[in-house]
Amino acid sequence: MPSFTSPTKDTQFVLHDVLNIQESGIPGFDELERDFTGAVLTEAGKVADNVLHPLNVVGDKEGCRLENGVVYTPTGFKEAFEQMKEGGWTGLDMPEEFGGQNMPYVIGTAVGEYFSAANQAFTMYQGLTHGAASAILAHGTDAQKATYLPNMVSCEWTGTMNLTEPHCGTDLGLMRTKAELQEDGSYKISGQKIFISSGEHDMAENIIHLVLAKVPGGPEGIKGVSLFIVPKFLVNEDGSLGARNGATVGNIEEKMGIHGNSTCVMNYDEATGYLLGDLNKGMRAMFTMMNEARLGVAMQGLAQAEAAYQNALIYAKDRLQGRDVTGVKNPEGPADPLIVHPDIRRNLMDQKSFAEGARAFVLWGATMIDKAHRSEDKDADGLISLLTPVLKGFLTDKGYDMTVQAQQVYGGHGYIEEWGMSQYTRDARIAMIYEGANGVQALDLVGRKLAQDGGKHVMAFFELVKNFCKENADISEDYAKDFIDPLKSASKDLQAAGMFFMQNGMKNPNHALAGSNDFMHMFGHVCLGLMWAMMAKSAQAALDAGTTDADFYTTKIATGRYYMARQLCSTKLHLARIETGADTVMALDAEQF
Amino acid sequence: MPSFTSPTKDTQFVLHDVLNIQESGIPGFDELERDFTGAVLTEAGKVADNVLHPLNVVGDKEGCRLENGVVYTPTGFKEAFEQMKEGGWTGLDMPEEFGGQNMPYVIGTAVGEYFSAANQAFTMYQGLTHGAASAILAHGTDAQKATYLPNMVSCEWTGTMNLTEPHCGTDLGLMRTKAELQEDGSYKISGQKIFISSGEHDMAENIIHLVLAKVPGGPEGIKGVSLFIVPKFLVNEDGSLGARNGATVGNIEEKMGIHGNSTCVMNYDEATGYLLGDLNKGMRAMFTMMNEARLGVAMQGLAQAEAAYQNALIYAKDRLQGRDVTGVKNPEGPADPLIVHPDIRRNLMDQKSFAEGARAFVLWGATMIDKAHRSEDKDADGLISLLTPVLKGFLTDKGYDMTVQAQQVYGGHGYIEEWGMSQYTRDARIAMIYEGANGVQALDLVGRKLAQDGGKHVMAFFELVKNFCKENADISEDYAKDFIDPLKSASKDLQAAGMFFMQNGMKNPNHALAGSNDFMHMFGHVCLGLMWAMMAKSAQAALDAGTTDADFYTTKIATGRYYMARQLCSTKLHLARIETGADTVMALDAEQF
Repeated sequence: MPSFTSPTKDTQFVLHDVLNIQESGIPGFDELERDFTGAVLTEAGKVADNVLHPLNVVGDKEGCRLENGVVYTPTGFKEAFEQMKEGGWTGLDMPEEFGGQNMPYVIGTAVGEYFSAANQAFTMYQGLTHGAASAILAHGTDAQKATYLPNMVSCEWTGTMNLTEPHCGTDLGLMRTKAELQEDGSYKISGQKIFISSGEHDMAENIIHLVLAKVPGGPEGIKGVSLFIVPKFLVNEDGSLGARNGATVGNIEEKMGIHGNSTCVMNYDEATGYLLGDLNKGMRAMFTMMNEARLGVAMQGLAQAEAAYQNALIYAKDRLQGRDVTGVKNPEGPADPLIVHPDIRRNLMDQKSFAEGARAFVLWGATMIDKAHRSEDKDADGLISLLTPVLKGFLTDKGYDMTVQAQQVYGGHGYIEEWGMSQYTRDARIAMIYEGANGVQALDLVGRKLAQDGGKHVMAFFELVKNFCKENADISEDYAKDFIDPLKSASKDLQAAGMFFMQNGMKNPNHALAGSNDFMHMFGHVCLGLMWAMMAKSAQAALDAGTTDADFYTTKIATGRYYMARQLCSTKLHLARIETGADTVMALDAEQF
Repeated sequence: MPSFTSPTKDTQFVLHDVLNIQESGIPGFDELERDFTGAVLTEAGKVADNVLHPLNVVGDKEGCRLENGVVYTPTGFKEAFEQMKEGGWTGLDMPEEFGGQNMPYVIGTAVGEYFSAANQAFTMYQGLTHGAASAILAHGTDAQKATYLPNMVSCEWTGTMNLTEPHCGTDLGLMRTKAELQEDGSYKISGQKIFISSGEHDMAENIIHLVLAKVPGGPEGIKGVSLFIVPKFLVNEDGSLGARNGATVGNIEEKMGIHGNSTCVMNYDEATGYLLGDLNKGMRAMFTMMNEARLGVAMQGLAQAEAAYQNALIYAKDRLQGRDVTGVKNPEGPADPLIVHPDIRRNLMDQKSFAEGARAFVLWGATMIDKAHRSEDKDADGLISLLTPVLKGFLTDKGYDMTVQAQQVYGGHGYIEEWGMSQYTRDARIAMIYEGANGVQALDLVGRKLAQDGGKHVMAFFELVKNFCKENADISEDYAKDFIDPLKSASKDLQAAGMFFMQNGMKNPNHALAGSNDFMHMFGHVCLGLMWAMMAKSAQAALDAGTTDADFYTTKIATGRYYMARQLCSTKLHLARIETGADTVMALDAEQF
């Protein structure tokens, strides 16, 4: 059985030593004292480590069960859900007026990492609820907010997002689900939705489905899509539950992982629905929270990598196999621990440098979302919109790879379910797919975000990197050589790729799109390079100030050096690929394959 | 439900157009006429496509079941196994004297690819038998051969390999299983072995376990390990089955994949065993067939990638989603097929260029094994020994990655078990682990094979690449630019990495070992680059000769161009990493992690 300990110390380091959140000037952030966030993170960590983590394997083994229209969640989930509700964890970053605690999104994200790492399938029940509640908060009428939000913030009622249909996922313009206007202003919703996470279950008394559908006679394609609130039980005027609505689970999917979450086929049969936001503006309403939702998935990539890494590390220190070629390290034992071997070390350093870099990247992104919302800062909004596909695509691709590497440390024991490492891989796989498959993220980045507002945001990103390099080049010779130089070089590669797209994408957009996946990855590397340069700077400052915890900070710098030397250089390969353009990619006709 | 068609045409192309096997001068190869191998491959393909493939999903879903010491294989496996036996497929490359068909190893490998692609878990039952039979063939006494081989060649009896114990996998010197000499010259074997593929099942009347164990009082560690034949049922002098031996299944493991194969905990309780080969030379006996066994696993990496790719391609042509940005391709339909999108194309071309390149690499390697055995060619033996860890490590790592990419083409449908893409990923994962985890392959390559016989074999490899480039530089300007130049450049990177190891590994072996994984991968890329250069040359020759199948050959060249432009350049990244040495990899003490 795997173990898990929430990395609170590392989160605190990022929030306070690196991002200096308290001094960031974002409204409300001045209250985020080190002791306060420490207390929140510690309490959240206890829930993650002691309540959610022990149910992770249980959820994987038991899965969800559909019987006569009722979905039963795995043993212990219900009780744990009660504890989440009692602890107030479900409404951490929701407005006080609806029962939330009004904390910044960055704190919700920090805590969410622990919950996801401890039990991703479980945490999705409240994650989807959070997403649905956010959409109602942004687009609902006062009456809708009053009707649904208090119970959703507390997770008395949970929520879902219904986009996908059997024949359309990315291309939602093909949608067939219908919404017919009734005399009372409500709609009758009919159609089938698939892959509905937390679609039906036994942990809440009501489920509020947000459903995309088309009103007949409206505009063609995606421009005729509207968003509807479709409660499982209709809600009476007094707030009590009324009639059972025509929203039923048709099936629960057997999946590669996240077995503890009920992924449902949902059938809507003249179900009563209420328009949320404007008619035919459903996509906009659904995607208002897109940056948050995608950053949440990016965080899942990090979370699974962190959890898998912790276990791989324990195993590498514990398992005795072979001898250190440079000299026996464990003379009393029959062999040395795995961790003496350079290739095991390489594997672990990949994982460690990824997880810590990704944590900084995710939390940095979350503060931008807070800044955009709380300060109504358009530049922050533009920058996080640019970085969202990078966060989502890069961190979930790499997060998955890291779970595979963690599994590899275990040899054969990594392949059998008993040790739990297979589950990290299987669970992490979904994050590359949902909330926009990573190919779509790359397309969004290169086809849309790069040129947004005349390329203003990508220029701002390069400026930010450039200024950081300029301002910190003199910290020390070592720092300049180990951190600033590689960051500059990688950033130059990224700019060269952008230039290639500009020069060649005009002639043929495929010259840009054929390089979109490589561009997303090289952008991710530059962001992690920047994070490591920032973290190393902060760690050096702490050392210079005579910290009593020198080991933590020297380890941090050494881990950063690894990333800069061994990972950041990936930008060269990505650039080389991009610069070959679309010719070899598109050379074959479809029939020639 | 996924589909599968054995790629016989492509195998024929590699065997005859590229490797020119009939003219290779290897004893017996002159009989391998194009029509003959075509007939064998076609018949094997029918078995793979129509008998084994339909049971692949069945095996995954049902798995194996242990009841009262009996292991039941999934529905249909028994009948399919009978068909394999009746068709003579189990002894294809075994000596006629024991009932085999005496074909070269390369034909066994070509056919094995189809069987593995169609159903890896099933094919392992005969694969392990083949391995055990090969060890008896190489090291058994005449009496042992006569007793066991006829029934093993026909798969009336199956075989297993017992190496791993709970506390040791790679480091078999730690082994605890004991073998005590009896008065009659036999041994009593006691101990526990784990991860024993095909360890117990209901498809054969006897199972011949090959078990590594230590004779008490022998040399310490790995030098005191011997190999024993431990039949499930003892065999009487007349060949009939005698007493049940003390070799019993303790448990079957729940695994991430290959559910159709029974992975057993085997308990040996004073089981009667017979020494195979020399006392205390068990590792040598077990590993005589190592190149073959590891090439067989390399082939599995290719096989799963091929099967997954075939399905991803069908889906990409079939699924309508979005529009081609350069102009609508399917105006009658509601959307264009996925395959119009550049990033989907990039994904498919990665898979296609890998699978076809890997097929050539595997078959090329197999001919070297034939040459080494049939011609007793020491150079061929040296070269294949060098390339074995590259084949195994690179092709299974990449093969796995390709199954993940194939799964990604399906979006959400790739994650649910109904479509079968998750199984390819889960099944492919094991090949990176068993038969020596890929980190051990990298260590074998850099720590042992590079310097073997004074570095003679790696020099021979570079010479081979150099000569190929020299001899074919004048085919055409395009060919030189698209194939020869990138191959030269990648080979130069590989040599530079080898040079770095030589110059720095003396001071500290960790400078070489920290780069071992990168070196294995860059070596793999150079090999696939060489394969593509060879294939493109052959394809061009066919076109120049006025082939009637121009489409096949032009597609081949275009696919090769993709690999050379987009994949081979990976050597640059690997070299950059290697040249950072061990400093950042080994910077932390174990306690600092």
